[in-house]
Amino acid sequence: MSLHDHPSQPRTAAEKQAIINRLKRIEGQARGIQQMVEEDRYCIDILIQINAIQSALKQVGFSITERHIHHCINDAIQSGEGHEMIDELMNVLKQFSK
Amino acid sequence: MSLHDHPSQPRTAAEKQAIINRLKRIEGQARGIQQMVEEDRYCIDILIQINAIQSALKQVGFSITERHIHHCINDAIQSGEGHEMIDELMNVLKQFSK
Amino acid sequence: MSLHDHPSQPRTAAEKQAIINRLKRIEGQARGIQQMVEEDRYCIDILIQINAIQSALKQVGFSITERHIHHCINDAIQSGEGHEMIDELMNVLKQFSK
Amino acid sequence: MSLHDHPSQPRTAAEKQAIINRLKRIEGQARGIQQMVEEDRYCIDILIQINAIQSALKQVGFSITERHIHHCINDAIQSGEGHEMIDELMNVLKQFSK
Repeated sequence: MSLHDHPSQPRTAAEKQAIINRLKRIEGQARGIQQMVEEDRYCIDILIQINAIQSALKQVGFSITERHIHHCINDAIQSGEGHEMIDELMNVLKQFSK
Repeated sequence: MSLHDHPSQPRTAAEKQAIINRLKRIEGQARGIQQMVEEDRYCIDILIQINAIQSALKQVGFSITERHIHHCINDAIQSGEGHEMIDELMNVLKQFSK
Repeated sequence: MSLHDHPSQPRTAAEKQAIINRLKRIEGQARGIQQMVEEDRYCIDILIQINAIQSALKQVGFSITERHIHHCINDAIQSGEGHEMIDELMNVLKQFSK
Repeated sequence: MSLHDHPSQPRTAAEKQAIINRLKRIEGQARGIQQMVEEDRYCIDILIQINAIQSALKQVGFSITERHIHHCINDAIQSGEGHEMIDELMNVLKQFSK
């Protein structure tokens, strides 16, 4: 499905932790919404929370895309193998925007 | 922030369970991505999983919106109080599409 | 494809003019981008203009949706025929968010 | 606003024509919707046409982004000046997804 198993430059411990913290928060938000459904809370209040997760996920997606271009694609281009990896990225961006 | 504490017709136990199941799956996906980051997995594979959560959340959002219009807005309109609730919904939809 | 030929309450001349003005501006923007392509302008500058049209179209879409719910759906619900029309709207909103 | 006046490799006549044809179609669609508003056509039918323009514009945006990465960013990276241009692109993508 993808060209590689790992990014061309491993993420630092700090980078990993920053992403994991954001995902933990998203996980907590998903749990919070379950609670709201359990309590039969008002639809609009639930939708506002769903919007909040969507925004948070989009931020995570952007920061991973950003690093991917700055490192993996940058490295691939410098070693003359960029085009296949650019196509791979574009396919994911097209999915993302749906 | 919202006009009500609860939907105008309480969700049935089956309706609640269906939404909660979907949110549990989303929660599990968010945990799975943390694992992928931990293992320093390839950016594109992580982005594909983020896309998957986005789609799943969008589905949950639509089904809650759908029920909200069929029940809450429908009931409000029938008792002549629909317009304020329609404005409330539009505000959330505008946020959603960002 | 749709349930009706016209909105349940005809748009006023002022309402029509407001939407048409916005669409004329969008049409002009689409022409402007052709000019930019003709002059082989920088990709990013073209993308910024495409973003601008997308935002403008989204605004038009929202204002038509808003009026549709306040009038057509409101009227249909009051005469007890709302549900089919709500399903019709949801199908379009699902498309819209793609 | 942007780093350059032109793409690092000029678009061919055929490439320009392909994009301009798509934009002409979009311009025609925007004119068609004005006609529909003039005739007070049903909201949902208008929304379907707005969705169609949105999809068409998204396709144009993707194809310009794709060429930008394959050419401009590729060339900038090979001459060691990629990072600023990647940041520029990410800013536009973030806008695009709103």
